[in-house]
Amino acid sequence: MKAHAATSSIGSATVIIAMLEKTGTLKIASVGDCGLKVIRKGQVMFSISPQEHYFDCPYQISSEAEGQTYKDALVCSVNLMEGDIIVSGSDGLFDNIFDQEIVSIISESPSVDEAAKALAELARKHSVDVRFDSPYSMEARSRGFDVPWWKKLLGGKLIGGKMDDITVVVAQVKTVVVPEDEVQGGDTEEQKGNEQGAAAVVAYKMNDEEVA
Amino acid sequence: MKAHAATSSIGSATVIIAMLEKTGTLKIASVGDCGLKVIRKGQVMFSISPQEHYFDCPYQISSEAEGQTYKDALVCSVNLMEGDIIVSGSDGLFDNIFDQEIVSIISESPSVDEAAKALAELARKHSVDVRFDSPYSMEARSRGFDVPWWKKLLGGKLIGGKMDDITVVVAQVKTVVVPEDEVQGGDTEEQKGNEQGAAAVVAYKMNDEEVA
Repeated sequence: MKAHAATSSIGSATVIIAMLEKTGTLKIASVGDCGLKVIRKGQVMFSISPQEHYFDCPYQISSEAEGQTYKDALVCSVNLMEGDIIVSGSDGLFDNIFDQEIVSIISESPSVDEAAKALAELARKHSVDVRFDSPYSMEARSRGFDVPWWKKLLGGKLIGGKMDDITVVVAQVKTVVVPEDEVQGGDTEEQKGNEQGAAAVVAYKMNDEEVA
Repeated sequence: MKAHAATSSIGSATVIIAMLEKTGTLKIASVGDCGLKVIRKGQVMFSISPQEHYFDCPYQISSEAEGQTYKDALVCSVNLMEGDIIVSGSDGLFDNIFDQEIVSIISESPSVDEAAKALAELARKHSVDVRFDSPYSMEARSRGFDVPWWKKLLGGKLIGGKMDDITVVVAQVKTVVVPEDEVQGGDTEEQKGNEQGAAAVVAYKMNDEEVA
């Protein structure tokens, strides 16, 4: 909020900020074409999707008067449990990888570092694959974009990955601290953890870094 | 929480409860295979997905010891703006209709009542359409389910809608009341609304009602 008001240089960016509190509450603010998913027990439970003005034209937090500000942010929170996995990234990730692929890579990866690397690798591979029917190409077709009619007659359809910058952040909740009043009143004492488990996840993407 | 503890009759259900506060905060708790999406400016911005033990075997809040309780609920909140549309429903809705179809129907409907009716109608139509490549059939294929090998050789693949009970609730945020301190401190007074805009959305599904 203050940073946006204090910015005098011209430019724009898309931003997602997520902060995990000790009690397990993940607070999220997002402007632009970044996304975030929470995976619990092998399933995507919670998703924040990229914001766009219209197809392929994302919201941007901007120093210009006509740009978006923090007031346009999607603000939300979700109560996480121990073991929950947070996957955040730019549209280069979510336009090129399906939820089921994300879940699959997470389950096969020995660590969050390896998972982030594997997700970025697969997204990059799909982004340059003209024969991959990506989430992006499916979205494009559903919005009425397609190949010319003569290609359609030959059985062609609009497919392929989307070349774009790819940023991936993966984090896992290690411990959740149950508030004192709940511990005294309930039967949840076994969930009490230490404070080291709390972590912050921040993904930041500048326009200048965009590949395409 | 109290209701679950006080239940003595045997049975189980999936539940999603969403409460919209005057300030625009939508608080959500979900156990089982219901879902909820928020549509802002023609886009799905926020999604809660159904919980399952494994494919086609949803979480159920239950009176039995081995069932789930309120402690297994996904609990989250999202700050809504005036005009935001909430679509909540059972898996019979989300297994048979793509996000883009939901957005499209919402934009074409003159009221939330009409939108809910149109969504339920389309979901029902798709659920009995053996040739529709539904979100459910795509999910099934991505998890390794498919037609027998001899059908595959003939070019067949696992498609079709999913027969299930269909519950749809659609609501729109009319007014958001900005808290007093923000009104005094900032320039957001124009957003101040009246209290009638606050609304509660509740979708409840019993096992007994299931079609298939």
